[in-house]
Amino acid sequence: MTEIRPNLPVDEQLSILKRGVVDLVSEEDLRQKLSRSLETGQPLRVKLGADPTRPDLHLGHAVILRKMRQFQDLGHKVIMLIGDFTATIGDPTGKSKTRPPLTIEEARANAQSYLEQCRLILRSEPEVLEIRSNGEWLEQLGYKDIIGLTAKYTVARILERDDFSKRLSAGTPISMHELLYPLTQGYDSVALEADVELGGTDQLFNNLVGRALQRDYGQEPQVVMTLPLLVGLDGTEKMSKSLDNYIGISDEPHAIFAGLMKVPDPLLANYFTLLTDLPQERIDELVAGHPVEAHRVLAREVLVWLAPGADPDAAEERFRSVAKGGIPDDLPEVVVDAAELNDEGRVSMARLVVLAGLEPSNGAARKLIQNRGLKVSGEAYTDAQGWVEREQLCMEGGLILQKGKDKFKRLKME
Amino acid sequence: MTEIRPNLPVDEQLSILKRGVVDLVSEEDLRQKLSRSLETGQPLRVKLGADPTRPDLHLGHAVILRKMRQFQDLGHKVIMLIGDFTATIGDPTGKSKTRPPLTIEEARANAQSYLEQCRLILRSEPEVLEIRSNGEWLEQLGYKDIIGLTAKYTVARILERDDFSKRLSAGTPISMHELLYPLTQGYDSVALEADVELGGTDQLFNNLVGRALQRDYGQEPQVVMTLPLLVGLDGTEKMSKSLDNYIGISDEPHAIFAGLMKVPDPLLANYFTLLTDLPQERIDELVAGHPVEAHRVLAREVLVWLAPGADPDAAEERFRSVAKGGIPDDLPEVVVDAAELNDEGRVSMARLVVLAGLEPSNGAARKLIQNRGLKVSGEAYTDAQGWVEREQLCMEGGLILQKGKDKFKRLKME
Repeated sequence: MTEIRPNLPVDEQLSILKRGVVDLVSEEDLRQKLSRSLETGQPLRVKLGADPTRPDLHLGHAVILRKMRQFQDLGHKVIMLIGDFTATIGDPTGKSKTRPPLTIEEARANAQSYLEQCRLILRSEPEVLEIRSNGEWLEQLGYKDIIGLTAKYTVARILERDDFSKRLSAGTPISMHELLYPLTQGYDSVALEADVELGGTDQLFNNLVGRALQRDYGQEPQVVMTLPLLVGLDGTEKMSKSLDNYIGISDEPHAIFAGLMKVPDPLLANYFTLLTDLPQERIDELVAGHPVEAHRVLAREVLVWLAPGADPDAAEERFRSVAKGGIPDDLPEVVVDAAELNDEGRVSMARLVVLAGLEPSNGAARKLIQNRGLKVSGEAYTDAQGWVEREQLCMEGGLILQKGKDKFKRLKME
Repeated sequence: MTEIRPNLPVDEQLSILKRGVVDLVSEEDLRQKLSRSLETGQPLRVKLGADPTRPDLHLGHAVILRKMRQFQDLGHKVIMLIGDFTATIGDPTGKSKTRPPLTIEEARANAQSYLEQCRLILRSEPEVLEIRSNGEWLEQLGYKDIIGLTAKYTVARILERDDFSKRLSAGTPISMHELLYPLTQGYDSVALEADVELGGTDQLFNNLVGRALQRDYGQEPQVVMTLPLLVGLDGTEKMSKSLDNYIGISDEPHAIFAGLMKVPDPLLANYFTLLTDLPQERIDELVAGHPVEAHRVLAREVLVWLAPGADPDAAEERFRSVAKGGIPDDLPEVVVDAAELNDEGRVSMARLVVLAGLEPSNGAARKLIQNRGLKVSGEAYTDAQGWVEREQLCMEGGLILQKGKDKFKRLKME
C-alpha cells in the first residue's frame, strides 16, 4: 500500500499528477482546483468512465488506475462511473462489434468483475472511492431534456472528432445515435459534477465535450487528463487481450514477473515512467545499464504495488527456474472428467490441451503440437494425433502440459 | 360543399389527387394503397403536420388543405398533427427566430385558431378528420428510445438536407438538436401509421425521413406528396403574412375577391390549377382570354369553396363599387373609448388609424397620412398631425377611415 499524503503543497501534488500524462487541459485549471481544495478541505472529484463490456483488465488499464490511485493518495475522491445503462443499449444497428447490447445482468456481472479488479489498485475507503452508474440520470432523461442537451453542441464540433471526420470523408456510414454518445458521456460529467476526468488519449475528444457541457450547464469545467495507451509485449500494438500481447492485472505473480521480463527494450523507459514511481535519474541509469537487470527491477517494482501480498523473491525464483526449463511445483490443476474417455479408455492429447485451457480448439491444439510448442512432463511432444491412457491421468502427480516457456497445467483424473 | 365520392375507381382517384402535385413518392405505392383501400373498405390515413406557431392561414396553406379535402371527399381520413409538444421546446439555443419556445397555453391557443381556420376548408366529420398532438408519443420517449430512433438513420443522410449541407459547407453552426427534429417528425408518421404525408415542397426531405423510418419500424412506407409553395400577390415571393403579399383564408369575401383580382397575370394558370377544380382546357381558354374576365372567374371559383355562405355577386358588386371609389355600406365598426380623448376632448387622427387596426403604430399611421394613403369619409386626408373632435365621432354614421382601395373601418363613439 502506498502512503496517504493529503494536504501536500500544490506544486508537489502537480509534480506527482503530471507524471506520464499526455494531455492536460489545463494545468492552470488543475492548479486552481488543487489550491481551492487545500483551502476548503474539499477533495477533488476525479472521474473515470468505463463500459462494462470487457472485464479482463491488463497493465494498460493499470496505467490509468494508478493515476486514479495517486489522486486517492493525495486525499482526492475517485468516481468509477460504470456505463451499465448505455451498455444495455449497445449499438442498436448491430453493426458495431465493440458495442453488442448486454442484458442488465450481464452488464452488472461485468461491472462487478471490473470493479473487483480495479480494487487491486485503488483504495476502497468510501471517502476516496465512489461507484456510480449512468442509468441513475440517463433513465430520467426525456425527449425534452435530450433536445436541451443536444442544443448545446454543434454538429461541426462533434464531427471534428477524428474517427467521425475520417468516416464521413470516406463515405463510411455514421449512425445518428453515435453522435449522441459523446454528448451523453459529457453529460455524465455534468451529473457527477466532476473536477477532473481521466482517460486514455483516445478519450481526449469525448472528455473535452464534458468540459464544454459543464460550462454550458453553469458548472466549472472539468480538467481533462489523458494517459498514453500502453504498447504491448509485441512492441508495436497497444496492449490488448485480443492481440495476446498483454499482462493481466490479476495474473499470478510469477506470470506478471515473466511478462515484464519480456518487455521489448525500447519500451523499458516508458514502462518505468507509467508503471513505477522510480525517479527519472534512476530510470535513466537502469535503461543505460544491463537490460536483464533493468527488467528485473521493473518486474519487482510493479509486483510491489500490483500484488502487494506476493513475495517478489519467490516470483523471481519461479521465473528463473522455468526459464532454465524446470517445472515449478505449484501448478494450476485441471481435473478431467471420466466422461471424456472413449470406449477404449483414452482421450486425445489435442482434447487435453483444450481442456487445460491452453488452446481454444482441437485444431489449434494439433497445430501447437505440430509446431513443437507442447511439452508433456518436461519432454517435447510431437504426435498431433496422439492419445493418452486413463492410467497416465490417474498417476500420482498427473500429466503436466507445458505451452511455451511458462504456461503450465497439471491434468488429473479422480 | 364539394361532393363526397367514395369508392371511385383508382384511376379516377389518382387523376384528382395528382393535380398540382410536385413530388409523388411514389405513384405506384399510392396506386397500390388506393386499390387495397377499395378492396378492404379501409380508408387511407393522410397526415399533415403543423407547428402551432403562426395561426393566420392564407391561400398558400389552402393549396395543401384543399388537397387534404380531396382525400376526404374520396372517403379517406385526414390527420391534422399539431406539433404542440415540440413548439413548447422550440429552439433551446434561442438563435432561431422561427422557433421561439411557446408555453403550452400559447401552443394550444394557436392550435385551436389554426384548426378553426382549417375547418373552413376541411370536413369535420370524425370519420374523415382526426386531430392529434405529437406530445402523445414524444412525451413517452426516453433516452433508450431516442438512441433506438437515431440508430436508424445515418449522419450523411440527414446532412444531405439542402439547408444543412449549405450551412455545413459555409461554416454556419448547426446545433445538434436540429438534426433530431427531422427524425422526430419522421417518427410522428410511425406513431400515426400514416399512409400518405402531405406538405409543401420544402418538406420533401423531412417527409421522406418518415417514409424511411416507417420501413425501419416494420411498417409499409408512407407515400410522400408535395405541393408547390404558392407565389404571393407581389409575383415573386412565396405567399406569406410577413411579406404582406397574401390573401387570408378567413378574410371578408369582398377582400378575398379584391385580392384575387390583383393576382399577377403570369401566375393566373398556377392559381387556377391549385385553387380551383376547372379542367385544363377551360383554364387554357381563360388564360388566353381577357385578363379581367380570367381574374373574375378565379375569384368567384375560389369564393365558392372558401366562403360557401357568401354571395359571390355581392362580393363582386362590392369590389366594383370600391374600385370605382365608392364606399360600401356594411363596414366593420370600431367603437372608440371616451378615455382616448384628451383634456380638450379630442384624439389625434394617427391614434384613430391605430385604433382602427389599419396601422400598428402612431408613427406608421403618420407615414400613411404623409404618403396620401388615407381617406376620411371619402376625402383625401393629408394632415399627419391632425386632430379629431369628440363630436365628429359621435355623429350619425361616425367617421369612415379608408386605407388604400379596399380597407375600410367605421369609427364611432357612444
